[in-house]
Amino acid sequence: MSDQFVFAARGSTEAVEEGRALSPKFDADGLVTCVATDAASGDVLMVAHMNAEALAKTIETGEAWYFSRSRKALWRKGESSGHGQRVTEMRVDCDQDAVWIKVEQAGPGACHTGRRSCFYRAVPLGQKPGGSYTLEFRDADKTFDPAAVYAPKR
Amino acid sequence: MSDQFVFAARGSTEAVEEGRALSPKFDADGLVTCVATDAASGDVLMVAHMNAEALAKTIETGEAWYFSRSRKALWRKGESSGHGQRVTEMRVDCDQDAVWIKVEQAGPGACHTGRRSCFYRAVPLGQKPGGSYTLEFRDADKTFDPAAVYAPKR
Repeated sequence: MSDQFVFAARGSTEAVEEGRALSPKFDADGLVTCVATDAASGDVLMVAHMNAEALAKTIETGEAWYFSRSRKALWRKGESSGHGQRVTEMRVDCDQDAVWIKVEQAGPGACHTGRRSCFYRAVPLGQKPGGSYTLEFRDADKTFDPAAVYAPKR
Repeated sequence: MSDQFVFAARGSTEAVEEGRALSPKFDADGLVTCVATDAASGDVLMVAHMNAEALAKTIETGEAWYFSRSRKALWRKGESSGHGQRVTEMRVDCDQDAVWIKVEQAGPGACHTGRRSCFYRAVPLGQKPGGSYTLEFRDADKTFDPAAVYAPKR
């Protein structure tokens, strides 16, 4: 990690919750949780993670940058798919371990499965423990073909 | 953890992403991330975590249950404050490591600081790395007095 991407040290609970300094609570892996919602519809598009560099780049550029836990790599949303996210507003929560970005989603969707949102299945309520839980597809129409979008570039 | 709260084993990526079985990807601490949004306004109220039991109880009862990482304890939202959350819809994301619940928030707010939402500060965009980052309070009026709400019960 470059020393370039430094945030304020965390002070007292009062300072963290009521202060005007951004001092994120990065977890043991150096990440905060990021929720991206559609600036127009309010729907949650995706939940991902940011390390210090991704957070700093998102703030500076107004484009969403994330850190992939599986690939252990910084990535700009849309760098492969072309489906970037322009951030219209960023918020941080009380204890500063989560950020919420409202985004204008470029292209037909945010999800690598080819949907607008990653949350295309509902968990019907009232299901009891002890058995298996069933999902229902909802707003699940594919808006693009991921095989075409993520195909290796020649 | 009781054997009572068991979810389907995770299968192939195809099964996890395109299947109709709930098979959450709990992290090393046994948690999934949960985003709660206001069913009426769409605003993100809070980001928290659920273990298997919290997830099962939320599904069964339609009331939001979480797992506190700091207290290492299961809790029903509102058990101390009275500000519970009735879930109107639950969604799970593509890789099933995050859930989104739309909730009817009881009482004046979700945040322990006394606000409607935990996300009461904005991070102005365009700030450059290397210095300190400033926050702006937004929708930050206190809607209740946390000292009164969370006072020890006699």
